[in-house]
Amino acid sequence: MKQLVAEVEAILDQALPSAKVMPSVLHESMRYSTLGGGKRLRALLAMAACAAVGGEIRSTSSLVAAIEMVHAYSLIHDDLPCMDDDDLRRGKPTNHIVYGEAIAVLAGDALLTEAFAELAKMPDKYGISYETTVRVILELAHGAGSQGMVGGQVMDISSQDQELDADTLRYIHEHKTGALFKAALRGGALLGGADEEQLRQITRYAENFGLAFQITDDILDETGKVEQLGKAVQTDQRLGKQTYPRLYGLEKSQQMAKRCVEECLEALEGFSPEAGLLRELATFIIQRDH
Amino acid sequence: MKQLVAEVEAILDQALPSAKVMPSVLHESMRYSTLGGGKRLRALLAMAACAAVGGEIRSTSSLVAAIEMVHAYSLIHDDLPCMDDDDLRRGKPTNHIVYGEAIAVLAGDALLTEAFAELAKMPDKYGISYETTVRVILELAHGAGSQGMVGGQVMDISSQDQELDADTLRYIHEHKTGALFKAALRGGALLGGADEEQLRQITRYAENFGLAFQITDDILDETGKVEQLGKAVQTDQRLGKQTYPRLYGLEKSQQMAKRCVEECLEALEGFSPEAGLLRELATFIIQRDH
Repeated sequence: MKQLVAEVEAILDQALPSAKVMPSVLHESMRYSTLGGGKRLRALLAMAACAAVGGEIRSTSSLVAAIEMVHAYSLIHDDLPCMDDDDLRRGKPTNHIVYGEAIAVLAGDALLTEAFAELAKMPDKYGISYETTVRVILELAHGAGSQGMVGGQVMDISSQDQELDADTLRYIHEHKTGALFKAALRGGALLGGADEEQLRQITRYAENFGLAFQITDDILDETGKVEQLGKAVQTDQRLGKQTYPRLYGLEKSQQMAKRCVEECLEALEGFSPEAGLLRELATFIIQRDH
Repeated sequence: MKQLVAEVEAILDQALPSAKVMPSVLHESMRYSTLGGGKRLRALLAMAACAAVGGEIRSTSSLVAAIEMVHAYSLIHDDLPCMDDDDLRRGKPTNHIVYGEAIAVLAGDALLTEAFAELAKMPDKYGISYETTVRVILELAHGAGSQGMVGGQVMDISSQDQELDADTLRYIHEHKTGALFKAALRGGALLGGADEEQLRQITRYAENFGLAFQITDDILDETGKVEQLGKAVQTDQRLGKQTYPRLYGLEKSQQMAKRCVEECLEALEGFSPEAGLLRELATFIIQRDH
């Protein structure tokens, strides 16, 4: 896994415009928030899904870059003063603290755009068919868009300081984080040549993975330490956000996350040993401490 | 032209998610800034370029929607308090004035994402080949990205209150507005089935059109009235921005714009009468009063 994370870093370094290219402050800012940090979970999921259906991991390179760029852009915009107003991310000052708000907004915009450029280069760079390229672009656009990640973020900020019911909480998480996981997994599976049944099981895996991730994230925000997480803790409480531990209690939340992971593993039952990394990631996700 | 503008409106209305779809505040905000206004210049350029090379205008529908969504997103983000801080746009309060800054940022993000989703649907919706679809996506991503529109905006805000030389001013305009015109024109030409020579001439047209547009915009900002423009005037001066009239004087600027239009028409010399709309748009651009 460590080796793959290093590979993701190299792919991103190559895919992002150099800071020597004009306007250098923009490219510097894009690189600052994308390189050198993060668990690279979305990238690993894309690679693992591709491998799980018998594909070559190398064919996910553009998707890996694109999905991490989209993730980085979403963090930059989420951290803005007009959103969650966070100063710290992955143990470093957030983008707008370093480059100012205007550049932070624009670096996010450029990363999102560059993600689609990178995907559109797949046929030339990696010999991916035009049809698969278009399908993967559609997956990313759906996962990141107004009925995906951005939709989740809107519901999240609109419902701060409100008593949320379980359905709304679930909507927020399915969209805010789950949708991009799904795009990574389904995109990776498509690049690996998945058939319809495999795609269905990968989707089932994705939904349960996303939920397990989010519940664990909520738990860590309540119980973790700044040094472990590399970001502020108890921000949910500070922002008056609803969370799983607040809604269900800590123990019930942990049980729910565990049940999700079991369902992830069930989804993979028909898969060959090549699905090993995908199985590993599901177990890892609820055991992590950051 | 009026009829085409009405068609653009209908295409956008259909392509944008309904405000009934969750999260409705987001979709409302996206629709607020995209529908019901604007000259639709970029959309018209895409349609005109397609027609000029003998294509059917209908095949540009997704590009028309995508390019106007990208334009709308860029206006929403440009108007933010941390950027140009504008309250008025197309005669209406700007997006963040109506919906707040957080939703404005996210509506922009969602519009940019939706633009790529719309393009990726072209094969299904309009029978466009996967290869052409990917090429058009690449055009839009380049035009809108860090070395296109966003790059121009970065240089623009970074150089406020500075004495700019002619090269930097040209860089800003070529990127901030010119790059998206180019994407619209080249994308439209690709969808119309342009050959390499036609694409080269369309590109030449695009570069001159962009410059003529920007010079005229600068002139209008200095000489126009709020009622005509539907936005604040003399903002360039207020923001300490460099402009063509300030650098070259009013008369010389008008001459330069005129020369650009002549070059647009020269680029189209080898084209059939179907290039009529493209010729018209070039002449229109320096005669407009808003």
